[in-house]
Amino acid sequence: MINENYKAMLGKKSVIRQLSEFATERGKEIGYDNVFDFSLGNPSVAAPEEFNNAMKALMDEKTAMELHGYSPTLGNPEFKKAVADSLNRRFGMTYKPSDIFPTSGAAGAIAHALRAVTVPGDEVMVFAPFFPEYIPYVTGTGAKITVVPADTKAFQINFEKFDKLLNPNVKAVLINTPNNPTGVVYSEETIKKLAAKLEEKSAEYGFNIYLISDEPYREIIFDGVDNPYPAKYYKYTLTCYSFSKSLSLPGERIGYVACNPADPDSETIVAMCGQISRGTGHNCPASIIQQACAQVIDMTSDLSVYEKNMNLLYDELVKLGFEVVKPGGTFYIFPKALEDDAVAFSQKALKYDLVLVPADSFDCPGYFRMAYCIETEKVERSLANLRKFVETEYPNR
Amino acid sequence: MINENYKAMLGKKSVIRQLSEFATERGKEIGYDNVFDFSLGNPSVAAPEEFNNAMKALMDEKTAMELHGYSPTLGNPEFKKAVADSLNRRFGMTYKPSDIFPTSGAAGAIAHALRAVTVPGDEVMVFAPFFPEYIPYVTGTGAKITVVPADTKAFQINFEKFDKLLNPNVKAVLINTPNNPTGVVYSEETIKKLAAKLEEKSAEYGFNIYLISDEPYREIIFDGVDNPYPAKYYKYTLTCYSFSKSLSLPGERIGYVACNPADPDSETIVAMCGQISRGTGHNCPASIIQQACAQVIDMTSDLSVYEKNMNLLYDELVKLGFEVVKPGGTFYIFPKALEDDAVAFSQKALKYDLVLVPADSFDCPGYFRMAYCIETEKVERSLANLRKFVETEYPNR
Repeated sequence: MINENYKAMLGKKSVIRQLSEFATERGKEIGYDNVFDFSLGNPSVAAPEEFNNAMKALMDEKTAMELHGYSPTLGNPEFKKAVADSLNRRFGMTYKPSDIFPTSGAAGAIAHALRAVTVPGDEVMVFAPFFPEYIPYVTGTGAKITVVPADTKAFQINFEKFDKLLNPNVKAVLINTPNNPTGVVYSEETIKKLAAKLEEKSAEYGFNIYLISDEPYREIIFDGVDNPYPAKYYKYTLTCYSFSKSLSLPGERIGYVACNPADPDSETIVAMCGQISRGTGHNCPASIIQQACAQVIDMTSDLSVYEKNMNLLYDELVKLGFEVVKPGGTFYIFPKALEDDAVAFSQKALKYDLVLVPADSFDCPGYFRMAYCIETEKVERSLANLRKFVETEYPNR
Repeated sequence: MINENYKAMLGKKSVIRQLSEFATERGKEIGYDNVFDFSLGNPSVAAPEEFNNAMKALMDEKTAMELHGYSPTLGNPEFKKAVADSLNRRFGMTYKPSDIFPTSGAAGAIAHALRAVTVPGDEVMVFAPFFPEYIPYVTGTGAKITVVPADTKAFQINFEKFDKLLNPNVKAVLINTPNNPTGVVYSEETIKKLAAKLEEKSAEYGFNIYLISDEPYREIIFDGVDNPYPAKYYKYTLTCYSFSKSLSLPGERIGYVACNPADPDSETIVAMCGQISRGTGHNCPASIIQQACAQVIDMTSDLSVYEKNMNLLYDELVKLGFEVVKPGGTFYIFPKALEDDAVAFSQKALKYDLVLVPADSFDCPGYFRMAYCIETEKVERSLANLRKFVETEYPNR
């Protein structure tokens, strides 16, 4: 008998998906080159050549068994070591390979982290605006999601609202920095304040509230921006990572959960992740991908294009009078719409072949997201359309 | 706060794992070559060269985006088409690519299939002896597992017990043919009888009971043995497959759920699998692995070694007076122990450096499993130890 709950999910097409389909259709009419599609957060730069070279070398040097045989339940030892060493080197941490659990991207990482530190019925807090997939990620575990309203001034954390909503049912807090959809990086002040609040409430409630830190955009940081590593500031942090953005490998489904070695339970949590996998059918990322990633652990694609695109858009948006916080990283920017209804605003933009995502689905109505992981040349060409859109539709601003 | 349920799972080390660790330790003393380790079901033959060649060609011919970019939510189209075409060609089916959902191996496939057709609280039936991982697979969804006692005569299905245990709470029946641990292939008679019973009970209960058919050993079939394709006999069949055994790629985590096109809900179930993935963090197998598998879809590793090993063991076991059903496929054989307590029996075998798995954990006490996915030369050398073990420990049989 078919599970009606999953069937019911099929009806709901995401706004992003609908807009992306519009862009494809419109592209058939006027050429996709002339559609300024800012809808999808898909890396637009190629994976570094070294990744393919590492894959080929592995196939030449390792036996089929070493390469394609089962990985240990808790992951390939070389990959775990490469991740731990890299984090230690870069962030002054003391991870051991046994603190690292390889996963199929950040989605897999969050799925494991959530299950490790909550039980069905618990509450998980997220901060608006947030990646809409957090809803199925959290509710899929049986936990409930509580949204802390946005700090629309700086898109850091609205601590006043956070404080009011915290309660003893909250077992985990899920953050995303650098942030999708705002492009903002949490400052050291924010992270310190968050850590202090979690420590205070953990003491008050008599258990440790876990911080699940989703960091797929960690490597896309713009000039002069400081990107503090959250686990350094709070002991009970599970760091979730994906190589989708930094190495442009979203299809290869590789990431990890890094459990803070300062937490006495860190290795237990890694072992628990192995048990969690048995029930969800995840069973670790592909063996050859783990082994190849280990060899290019500190490399990235050429990420400089994202900063170039951001600056072009940011300058134009400011010139046009948009209220917008300058992104510190990622490939997103998050301006305030020129009318209260961002859905109506984005609909009007379509007439100018501008595909903008209203932020209602990110739980932040009145704003919109632009994903500028597209060719710089196209960003440049889009500026005239943006200008024409604003001047025509909002002449009296 | 740590999830105590997953933590509690950590204490329970599987018998197979314990035995395998014994074998490794003993190997350090006398050389692993002299330990006859029949504990693990790990492919012992290499993946075909064509697989690596396909991987390399893809890296030379495709752009990084085509190769490493996101796969569509419901899987790579070429892989889906290759699977559908192969099943149609070989089994006279009429699958469309849209009936196929790529997964991370059979574990991923079963995780999706179970969630698609049950809700928490439902009952899922399995037939003893069965792969012990079915327990976390089923209970991980919130469903309950009901075990139908073994047909110890032929290791087909005990229909009398099956009939007695069927009830309106049973929403799915999970079979595994060719079977781990028995090596037995379900006959056409068995499959037909099973299909008839499921049709009868579906009509009686007023909903369709789904058949989840786990077939990772489908390609390891011995001379003259007929291996009927279950979905051909029952409309509501979800076929779960893995390339782990046929292509010796267990580490690459690639498999699929094939939804019977005769079921009007088949494409809906595929779409639902995409939704299920969002909650479990699975998010499809690696893109390059899907694309490479599509190109070697009908190939297998050199599987002939398993039949050679089986014949050596079977003949010797019969000669020594064991009660044993001749395997029709897989790389397992499942004899009756020479005393009622198969755990004690297997303990005694260790003195002869024979690592045999007592079948208590397969829910079939009194039997033991030998996994003969090891070098033929080693199987040959093991026979003397087997003989000595039996003659010394059970002289009065």
